Amino acid sequence: MALPASITICEDGPREGFQFEGEGIATADKIRLIDALSLTGLKVIQVASFVHPKLVPGMADAEDVVNGIQLVPGVRYTGLWLNERGFLRAKDVGRLSLRGTLSFVASEPFCARNVKRTLAENFAEQRRIAEVYLENGIPLERASIQAAFGCNFQGQVETGAVVAIVDQIRDLVTELSLEMPIISLADTMAWATPLAIKRTIDAIKQKYPEQRLSLHLHDTRGMAIANAVAGMESGVDLFDASVGGLGGCPFAGHRGAAGNICTEDLVFLCEEMGVETGIDLDTLIESAKLAEDIVGRPLPGSVKSGGSLARFRQVRGEAK
Amino acid sequence: MALPASITICEDGPREGFQFEGEGIATADKIRLIDALSLTGLKVIQVASFVHPKLVPGMADAEDVVNGIQLVPGVRYTGLWLNERGFLRAKDVGRLSLRGTLSFVASEPFCARNVKRTLAENFAEQRRIAEVYLENGIPLERASIQAAFGCNFQGQVETGAVVAIVDQIRDLVTELSLEMPIISLADTMAWATPLAIKRTIDAIKQKYPEQRLSLHLHDTRGMAIANAVAGMESGVDLFDASVGGLGGCPFAGHRGAAGNICTEDLVFLCEEMGVETGIDLDTLIESAKLAEDIVGRPLPGSVKSGGSLARFRQVRGEAK
Repeated sequence: MALPASITICEDGPREGFQFEGEGIATADKIRLIDALSLTGLKVIQVASFVHPKLVPGMADAEDVVNGIQLVPGVRYTGLWLNERGFLRAKDVGRLSLRGTLSFVASEPFCARNVKRTLAENFAEQRRIAEVYLENGIPLERASIQAAFGCNFQGQVETGAVVAIVDQIRDLVTELSLEMPIISLADTMAWATPLAIKRTIDAIKQKYPEQRLSLHLHDTRGMAIANAVAGMESGVDLFDASVGGLGGCPFAGHRGAAGNICTEDLVFLCEEMGVETGIDLDTLIESAKLAEDIVGRPLPGSVKSGGSLARFRQVRGEAK
Repeated sequence: MALPASITICEDGPREGFQFEGEGIATADKIRLIDALSLTGLKVIQVASFVHPKLVPGMADAEDVVNGIQLVPGVRYTGLWLNERGFLRAKDVGRLSLRGTLSFVASEPFCARNVKRTLAENFAEQRRIAEVYLENGIPLERASIQAAFGCNFQGQVETGAVVAIVDQIRDLVTELSLEMPIISLADTMAWATPLAIKRTIDAIKQKYPEQRLSLHLHDTRGMAIANAVAGMESGVDLFDASVGGLGGCPFAGHRGAAGNICTEDLVFLCEEMGVETGIDLDTLIESAKLAEDIVGRPLPGSVKSGGSLARFRQVRGEAK
């Protein structure tokens, strides 16, 4: 198997998870989880979402969370925003490592539903946000493509449509004299399988061999780990993930309701296949258990219950 | 991706699941689930375990279950046994499609723990059981290798050790003038990752290119679907699976306690990648929900909650 020597994991759990958990989570608990995650070896943690509290009540305390955490050297703390106002809130709080992100959508009906814009309107809005980053001296880091593998409101998304969005992004950054950002392919509604992951990445790489890609894999249908393997085999070395599998719909305690790929399951996969993550799995598992305690219901990740293999190898004094 | 055109799934849920659920499941409910599974397109269903009721109280009603189900033409109903006495019980009940199975172990300490035999004693016992099959005119179908990817009591299992067991099995069947059975590689304690799956299968195929293999993948660490993909890429077209993810340790409602790979998640994977299973996914999802109702707690599978993609494609009148 051709696998990258190492990958970087962007921990989205505090943002994805607490955003969905609503108002029931105390600010102190959010801080406690982020502080624990800071000691696992994770290098990027998305700690809060700067969206209107009316839309996401669970994130009304975003500033308090960011101000309350212990900043650990070597860890980048990031936030999420969906418009200029949110970006300026994230900027004002002052403790975050701000990099520019843009959000594109591969499906017209999902775009209409999710951000109430046509694809053309959304593109214009993203151009405007890119200009705001320019004005504020914030480097553009990432452009995500939502619903890149399929959409509940459109059906199949063709790889050609995804490549066309990459074309658009290249035109935009060329026009604004920016560096090409990382392209994050988001399986927003969990349509992807390994075959679709490879097909889409191959189509992009065929046109843009040097393009760095990232994957944001929702696990609603249990395919996320297999999709991550397919991504790594296609050269992807950057993944979003969510400790314990935090996120998704909060209505049920079973994993059908899960959100993003579970961080510790992804780290286990990598560790066992010799792909470096820089993360200490057993410490991360403790964070996953803490996340579970905080939300007060079983989270979907497996390895926090199954355990790492380190102790079984230690008994016999074995190397991996 | 090189994938098989079709795979066969052996549904182990009624046996694996109800074995672990203890005495709390009514015989009528077991029959109800098996009858539902019979209508999904599954071709092989393992319906009961013929072990001593003192060891597995949940299987004390094995004969009643077998006698109670509706035999659907085209479906093979099988059972599990661990010794001659169990085999003869399965034979006496008369309604099962009996084929011979042998069980080898790749780890000395696991063998001691699980069947209270040394590896040599277990090999002798399997030879004896093979002779019982011969005496009874039962064809030998499958030889499984437990702990083929690692063991909690031994640590790593080297691929060379697994190939050596295949050598032993070949010697045994040659001696007894039997056809070589399918070799089922069992990831009993969920140590495998896709890399280990490919490495082990490659080692066997290098020595025995024509050997048919099967995978029995426990999902304790969330790797089963990714491991199934690796298996299919290595040419495996036969998988055990468990509806809803039934099985494993019954002590908790979350998937860390899961047993075998979840059938409907595997069928979803295959359907979306163009690998035929002959199974109707939406009908199978109904069976998974029935299994969940019967055990009265959330089962670990994802697709029964996430749903198939058929309805989203139908809205748009799309082909896959």
